[in-house]
Amino acid sequence: MITIQDLFWLIPSASVLALIFAGIFFYRMKAQDEGNEVMKMIARHVRSGAMAYLRQQYKIVAIFFVLITVVFAFLAYCLHIQNPWVPFAFISGGFFSGLAGYIGMKTATYASGRVANACRHSLDAGLQIAFRSGAVLGLTVVGLAMLDIGAWYWVLDWFYGDMELSMRLVVITTTMLTFGMGASLQALFARVGGGIFTKAADVGADLVGKVEAGIPEDDPRNPATIADNVGDNVGDVAGMGADLYESYCGSILASAALGAAAYMAVPEMAIKAVLTPMLIAALGTILSLLGVYAVRVKRGASQTELMAALNRGINLSSFLIAIASAFLLQLIGLDNWAGIWGAIVTGLAVGIVIGKSTEHYTSHDSYPCRKIAHSAKTGPATVIISGIGIGMISTCIPVITVVVGTVLAYGLASGDWHFTGAEMSKGLYGIGIAAVGMLSTLGLTLATDAYGPISDNAGGNAEMSKLDPEVRRRTDALDALGNTTAATGKGFAIGSAALTALALLASYIEELKISILHWSEATGNTIYKINDAVSVEVSKISTASLSDFMGYFQVTLMNPKVLMGLFVGAMMSFMFCGLTMNAVGRAAEKMVKEVRRQFKEIKGILTGEAEPDYVRCVEISTAGAQHEMIWPSVLAVITPICMGIVFGVPGVFGLLAGGLASGFVLAVFMANSGGAWDNAKKYIEQGHVGGKGSESHKAAVIGDTVGDPFKDTSGPSLNILIKLMSMVAIVTAGVNIAVTLF
Amino acid sequence: MITIQDLFWLIPSASVLALIFAGIFFYRMKAQDEGNEVMKMIARHVRSGAMAYLRQQYKIVAIFFVLITVVFAFLAYCLHIQNPWVPFAFISGGFFSGLAGYIGMKTATYASGRVANACRHSLDAGLQIAFRSGAVLGLTVVGLAMLDIGAWYWVLDWFYGDMELSMRLVVITTTMLTFGMGASLQALFARVGGGIFTKAADVGADLVGKVEAGIPEDDPRNPATIADNVGDNVGDVAGMGADLYESYCGSILASAALGAAAYMAVPEMAIKAVLTPMLIAALGTILSLLGVYAVRVKRGASQTELMAALNRGINLSSFLIAIASAFLLQLIGLDNWAGIWGAIVTGLAVGIVIGKSTEHYTSHDSYPCRKIAHSAKTGPATVIISGIGIGMISTCIPVITVVVGTVLAYGLASGDWHFTGAEMSKGLYGIGIAAVGMLSTLGLTLATDAYGPISDNAGGNAEMSKLDPEVRRRTDALDALGNTTAATGKGFAIGSAALTALALLASYIEELKISILHWSEATGNTIYKINDAVSVEVSKISTASLSDFMGYFQVTLMNPKVLMGLFVGAMMSFMFCGLTMNAVGRAAEKMVKEVRRQFKEIKGILTGEAEPDYVRCVEISTAGAQHEMIWPSVLAVITPICMGIVFGVPGVFGLLAGGLASGFVLAVFMANSGGAWDNAKKYIEQGHVGGKGSESHKAAVIGDTVGDPFKDTSGPSLNILIKLMSMVAIVTAGVNIAVTLF
Repeated sequence: MITIQDLFWLIPSASVLALIFAGIFFYRMKAQDEGNEVMKMIARHVRSGAMAYLRQQYKIVAIFFVLITVVFAFLAYCLHIQNPWVPFAFISGGFFSGLAGYIGMKTATYASGRVANACRHSLDAGLQIAFRSGAVLGLTVVGLAMLDIGAWYWVLDWFYGDMELSMRLVVITTTMLTFGMGASLQALFARVGGGIFTKAADVGADLVGKVEAGIPEDDPRNPATIADNVGDNVGDVAGMGADLYESYCGSILASAALGAAAYMAVPEMAIKAVLTPMLIAALGTILSLLGVYAVRVKRGASQTELMAALNRGINLSSFLIAIASAFLLQLIGLDNWAGIWGAIVTGLAVGIVIGKSTEHYTSHDSYPCRKIAHSAKTGPATVIISGIGIGMISTCIPVITVVVGTVLAYGLASGDWHFTGAEMSKGLYGIGIAAVGMLSTLGLTLATDAYGPISDNAGGNAEMSKLDPEVRRRTDALDALGNTTAATGKGFAIGSAALTALALLASYIEELKISILHWSEATGNTIYKINDAVSVEVSKISTASLSDFMGYFQVTLMNPKVLMGLFVGAMMSFMFCGLTMNAVGRAAEKMVKEVRRQFKEIKGILTGEAEPDYVRCVEISTAGAQHEMIWPSVLAVITPICMGIVFGVPGVFGLLAGGLASGFVLAVFMANSGGAWDNAKKYIEQGHVGGKGSESHKAAVIGDTVGDPFKDTSGPSLNILIKLMSMVAIVTAGVNIAVTLF
Repeated sequence: MITIQDLFWLIPSASVLALIFAGIFFYRMKAQDEGNEVMKMIARHVRSGAMAYLRQQYKIVAIFFVLITVVFAFLAYCLHIQNPWVPFAFISGGFFSGLAGYIGMKTATYASGRVANACRHSLDAGLQIAFRSGAVLGLTVVGLAMLDIGAWYWVLDWFYGDMELSMRLVVITTTMLTFGMGASLQALFARVGGGIFTKAADVGADLVGKVEAGIPEDDPRNPATIADNVGDNVGDVAGMGADLYESYCGSILASAALGAAAYMAVPEMAIKAVLTPMLIAALGTILSLLGVYAVRVKRGASQTELMAALNRGINLSSFLIAIASAFLLQLIGLDNWAGIWGAIVTGLAVGIVIGKSTEHYTSHDSYPCRKIAHSAKTGPATVIISGIGIGMISTCIPVITVVVGTVLAYGLASGDWHFTGAEMSKGLYGIGIAAVGMLSTLGLTLATDAYGPISDNAGGNAEMSKLDPEVRRRTDALDALGNTTAATGKGFAIGSAALTALALLASYIEELKISILHWSEATGNTIYKINDAVSVEVSKISTASLSDFMGYFQVTLMNPKVLMGLFVGAMMSFMFCGLTMNAVGRAAEKMVKEVRRQFKEIKGILTGEAEPDYVRCVEISTAGAQHEMIWPSVLAVITPICMGIVFGVPGVFGLLAGGLASGFVLAVFMANSGGAWDNAKKYIEQGHVGGKGSESHKAAVIGDTVGDPFKDTSGPSLNILIKLMSMVAIVTAGVNIAVTLF
């Protein structure tokens, strides 16, 4: 008979397996030929730019981390209102997330030149290298996440070994949850900084290069072109990786915490519920690896066949996970295994539906994109109007999908289809499990995501090193595919962020409970005075049902604190977007000025006789990103803390729920509008509505430029905002409780 | 000793007074000279176009009203799950709102020609006519609203005369609240239809006339120019009037219902609490009338003096209301009169702060507008990016203001600064009173709003009838002033909609309670089964505190139904905006085609030898608006009903709160972005950043065109959406209860 303790070893094993394969893929890729001297030089430029940026970003992040760790240490060791593990958990989360981003980006910058070179031979050779290099990021993210989770679980289980099991699990899981904040903060900087970097370079390069000087994209005469290619790496590889690293950890840890609470009465079930999300993730990792090997094309494959190959990989993994998790759950022997399995499948389905919906609204031959393209006949204003209109309408399907998915996951896991609140903990556990299910294919989906910018960079390399046009045509085919996977990947990232944030919101309650117990232990107080009217015995709190608990804290929608939290939460999403949009605008303006200066001052750039100063442009984007990322990040961290101090627990709940609901919808809108503008432009470039160079095309280029910060800076940054605010609330739950007391 | 019954007569008296003065202002205006034959002809064109549109709109509205009334009658008289007064209340609300819009627009279309003519003599003569004509709308709106409210109160008080007082008040106020839905639906059509009409004409006229043909604004050679002028009337006069009519009624009625509930235990206080909002409104009406007379300028006044005159009127009225309401409240003798007075002053202050914030972000020499204007140097894309960025950031102050205002109003009225929930009814009553306080100056603020489009049309008339350029310069001065008042008016409309919607959300609970009592009476059931786990005795429900009541229905933020309602509510705001944006896009496209056709087919238009077919353009805008207004309206009505059926009361609460929070923020963003783009363009036209005709100017014109549907269609329509959804929920509360039962 296999015990749950035996199964635990699946977690480190899957982690090590993922890391080993990541290493293999990396060294195999590096063994490939990087092409001629020009190609090597360009790849080196991009690589050194990307690494220089990452160093700068990590410096800023390090300052933040040191400051916050000091605060946490003070709260934990001097005031005793913070879990003593928090400072370490915080640092470890941030460190592993940063490491994953670093490895992913290093791989991507080594790979793109090699992909370009492989495309000199055949399309399928290019695909193979690009995709396997993307898989390095995917596998590193899941491998490191599980390593961190597994190690912490093991350490804490040993440390609290003499505690009674169900209480031990509650303590372990609520402690582990706090390491999510480290990952979250790292992700925020990666997404916001990377997003600003990439779009400042892109917008700057387009505005002066394409529009003013009339030179094509990726032309080596454009001084911002290297910065643009660097941007693809820092934004789409490192940023996306950090974002999903956070969702992945967040969903697993939140589910574990919810599981410990839901099955508290039956310790042997509780440990199963805690380990289930980790085991599903381990299973997903192994099966994703199989999926990576399923992505194969025969020599001379067409673009449709490439797409089919990628889809085959993802479908196969999803299908295998759906089947295998049923067996795994039976093996674990968790109560209501069929319901939990239903939640996993629901999560997988939500991911697929949101991906398909994103594809519908943003793929270049879809009705919405064609509509935008046709509105270009009446100029840029109508392009913008119809793009915004379509983006806003496109929020419907993802929201309905998440709503239906959440209700299904809750109902299936709790068996309480009337939502009476009696089985609320189990229902919320189901929501967490759905998020874990959705993210279980992450090793593979992240590979297809990272594949996009690698191919994009390969195209840039081919263009700049003036390879045969046939090579560029091949890299373009890879890139077109990458655009589709990037769009669906964005939908996947947003959808998983929403589910993860829901699970985090739910686990905030568990964190509050444990904080009250901690406070009671520290002060010897046995009555917890929530406000003038309500006092509760601490002993009742530890076993209180979630609905009772919400009642104590008056987290009802008519409490003005909750309502005001909702308003501020909704406003936060918009403020955050506004700040990042303006940041891109400002940084892009500096880039435009620099490019114009170089065109004017360095004679012979446009004739190709002199080399532009690429490094200066990379520096400008780096400085812009570095400078502009600080204020939005501070806002995201400070707001939940202030809300907790001013309006207490109900205000924080309102803030998180309001931020989540409107942030999710806003993120979908911005990502889809941006994607649709991009592909409307591509549709025109294919010769429709006047074709390249027509007035319609110019109008569509303006739409695309507006869409750049929409889809690559502000929209994706919202994913982090909604998770980070929950994480900050979770970590400062002890402070919230303390503030309410004194 | 004056009793509260004696004071009641203030309400009809103020109403009649307002209507008499509206009549006097109207006939005095009509007695003015309308100018030469050309001017008369143009005014006639605009008038007949506006009236033709209004007839079409009312036809569609009538169909909707008949259908909905039949459904209400069926629910009330056949299924007995609806208050039997609802069909009548619904119709009366719609009728009076429509009548106010009709009178306001008739006045505006008579006035603009006369304003143009008066400007041939002097600026101050023009201001006087324009402002007094605007006051006709303001006074008609408040007069008719109070007439309707007063009459219903009187009839219902007589009808339920033998019922015990405090119960009678609950029944009366919850019944009266349902007439808000009639006003709300009428307002929706006016705002959405009017918004689509005006922007289809405006965008169409600009794109072909200004951009393609290079002829100035309001040029008689542009076939869409009459439609554009008609649009100002149907969008900004009739639409704005209906919007604020609804807020005005909604805030008074919601406060009355909340007052009846809050003081239920003490009947003599309850009647005071019910009549207080109506009496404040009556007082406000009388003092607004004084304010109208304070807007006077001496002969030959400058633009600054005009602005000072308008501000003097509003400041004087606000100040007088703040003073006089203190005396009134003491006279009424309501408990905690100082707290209630504080809520009124808070409301007034919220209105002023939001107005100032809007002015800051949208006035043409403010920092944000200048920033957008400077970003025009790098083309239209950066104009759009910075406009969106600034609009999003501009949501901060209004949201914080509403949050602080709501918390203050709640705390002052309830005295419960810890928000324990013990005095929740009184606190929510305070929020309603704050909305009433904010709207108490409506007679005057609406006059300054309607003044804008009247001056705008006067400018159009002067241009088309080729009057002396000096006349146009004078109407432009009036118009510039009108733009500022229109921007602050928009902020005021949004802010008041948010406060009103909050009050409506709170009064939804009262409607639920009365529905349960009604159901219990009809079925003889004394136990109300809320769900599998919770059953409550009906006798307990009538006296249950609000927090208990929220507890019964599990309206806590962790109930998945509430969370899902929040998501759908946030999505609804975006969907609704997307639909209206696209509607403008489509209708504008038809207009562009028609104008191009006329330029091509009617020889001699551009040389001024042939007259364009103005009527055809008006017809196109009318047909577009008529066609496009249906789908968003159906969505707004259907969604709360479906949510009630699928997710019950918690789902509806979530929907309303989510829609309110994100709709409010989205509305502020869209209005401010639109206003800022408009004035950035004006700033460039004054000769900055290259001036008129430069590339920067062209880029700014594109920003302005995108901003048109932002600020005049989608943004303002959201005001109605957030109120209408609450109204639908309130009216169908009986159905929600019935659905939960069967």
